[in-house]
Amino acid sequence: MSAHAPQYAVGVDLGGTNIVVGAMSFDGAQLHGLQSVPTHASEGADAVIARMARMVNDTIEATMRETGVPREAFIGVGVGAPGTVDRETGRVLKAPNLGWHDRPLNDPMARLTGLPVEIDNDANCATYGEWWLGAARGGVNVIGVTIGTGVGGGVIIDRRLYRGSSYAAGEIGHTTIDLDGRRCGCGNYGCLEAYASGTAIAGRAQEALASDESSALRRMVDGDLSRITAALVYAAAAEGDVVALEIVRDTARVLGAGIANLLNIFNPDVVVIAGGVTQAGDALFEPLRKEVRRRAFKSVSDSCRIVPGTLPGTAGVVGAVAAFIAQTTGRPPV
Amino acid sequence: MSAHAPQYAVGVDLGGTNIVVGAMSFDGAQLHGLQSVPTHASEGADAVIARMARMVNDTIEATMRETGVPREAFIGVGVGAPGTVDRETGRVLKAPNLGWHDRPLNDPMARLTGLPVEIDNDANCATYGEWWLGAARGGVNVIGVTIGTGVGGGVIIDRRLYRGSSYAAGEIGHTTIDLDGRRCGCGNYGCLEAYASGTAIAGRAQEALASDESSALRRMVDGDLSRITAALVYAAAAEGDVVALEIVRDTARVLGAGIANLLNIFNPDVVVIAGGVTQAGDALFEPLRKEVRRRAFKSVSDSCRIVPGTLPGTAGVVGAVAAFIAQTTGRPPV
Repeated sequence: MSAHAPQYAVGVDLGGTNIVVGAMSFDGAQLHGLQSVPTHASEGADAVIARMARMVNDTIEATMRETGVPREAFIGVGVGAPGTVDRETGRVLKAPNLGWHDRPLNDPMARLTGLPVEIDNDANCATYGEWWLGAARGGVNVIGVTIGTGVGGGVIIDRRLYRGSSYAAGEIGHTTIDLDGRRCGCGNYGCLEAYASGTAIAGRAQEALASDESSALRRMVDGDLSRITAALVYAAAAEGDVVALEIVRDTARVLGAGIANLLNIFNPDVVVIAGGVTQAGDALFEPLRKEVRRRAFKSVSDSCRIVPGTLPGTAGVVGAVAAFIAQTTGRPPV
Repeated sequence: MSAHAPQYAVGVDLGGTNIVVGAMSFDGAQLHGLQSVPTHASEGADAVIARMARMVNDTIEATMRETGVPREAFIGVGVGAPGTVDRETGRVLKAPNLGWHDRPLNDPMARLTGLPVEIDNDANCATYGEWWLGAARGGVNVIGVTIGTGVGGGVIIDRRLYRGSSYAAGEIGHTTIDLDGRRCGCGNYGCLEAYASGTAIAGRAQEALASDESSALRRMVDGDLSRITAALVYAAAAEGDVVALEIVRDTARVLGAGIANLLNIFNPDVVVIAGGVTQAGDALFEPLRKEVRRRAFKSVSDSCRIVPGTLPGTAGVVGAVAAFIAQTTGRPPV
């Protein structure tokens, strides 16, 4: 292998539901050997780590077949984990969705793969992925907001991930935007997540429909309100359903207030919003941008673009590779 | 002058009410030649800049007398201005309290003082001053909140001031903490500043007293509610006045929610709170810290100290010197 042969890293996006793995060369040209399998977190941490390691090895072999590069081209593994991680010791400190509490991850993964492993938070990785190769490309100060089951966040300052003083920065979902507002899963009141997560959107629709017999949304689930999802709420809104439209509008308003807060605090050049609900497109982004302009300072909102992510499903893997490169080379990937 | 003679910079804290100036050696040992004079912003920018330049020269002469150092020891001037500044061009882009819009500051100041000038935002300077020599000393990631007529903020990331993508970061006072809350001076609703600034505290007391004839606070101003200030509200609370106590408690609750947001977003190791209302001491800080613990993640709140500033009146000057040193030497002062 020549000194100029491309180097590859493997990215792992460890989620509560699925594990996604792919390999990428340091130039970010293409994602190879992409796989996604269920996490089966209930089988325990050892089983999940063994599964991740097997996927890493499978991805390396698939990439070798696809590209013809030798095994020595693969120099390490980046992992994004759903919770608080200690990057220095390579441990997952707390990952409620996995049921993990202070679990070593880097060491067992390194033993099973024979490669050095770097770990980071999954929302950080998703933000870094969108910054490296997605919608936030070229940004200097970037906020990533991921809206799924919860509302997560990642912060890039001067092209580097910002992690805070105890690896817990970016908990954007748990900022108060309504002092005496809705109860949040975290136990607090009025958190952004209590309004804008996919779970919250579905929950608010269920509440609204309890006293509304005529909504199209109710018919879409044959009257079984427990089947309502955020995606269905947006679909019903697209068909003009009044209840759904009101929830979509109110979600945009709340999310807009939360993002305006981030603008006034960080004065970023890009906010990238990712996750399932962004499929709602303009129905979400138009009122959201309007609310941000209403609440953020003009100079701040004029100098920031608010965009949907462009790497659905792979931002976490791409970002885990990028975080590995940044950690290994000491500078952000280019 | 020997190669090892101490170097000095002059710091200027340009406020809407007063200009404060002092000189300091790069080792931060002592503030010399401190002066404070009224700004008289109504006389116009040229008059204010000429006044600042005279003060700088007076401070240099006073410092020379006090310390015996030669004029060549003074290598520059740092200015903290109340608004948005462009550090590269040395202009004040917008300073509502001064009535300035896109005014050059560095060039005229440099002509009048014969020294290089660096400019920064005043809340940034105050935060940097508390970090260099005050309550936030030793911090790595620090948030400064200054509560006066308004609520300002400064952000230090990895020991450096963070200014955002268009010099407007840190507008903590204009984050929404109550979606449909009180109208703010900025035109928006539910901003932190609309509850927690000195002006807001006095205003809320006036509103509460309009329907309360018995409060001690009313007697303290001989029934003239327009004379109520935040300081009087805290004094009345200290005497057990029910109306004042309720406002003090509610202010701590709102401020606690706003600061908890900063903790969950930044995961800082220090939050330093400065400004007049911090004189309320434990009456403010105890309920405030309690509310922060209630709303911020435990690991985040456990790793952060929330402290009052220890450089009242001089944090801005000290920070302007520190910002000048950082800009000139390329690294934070030690």
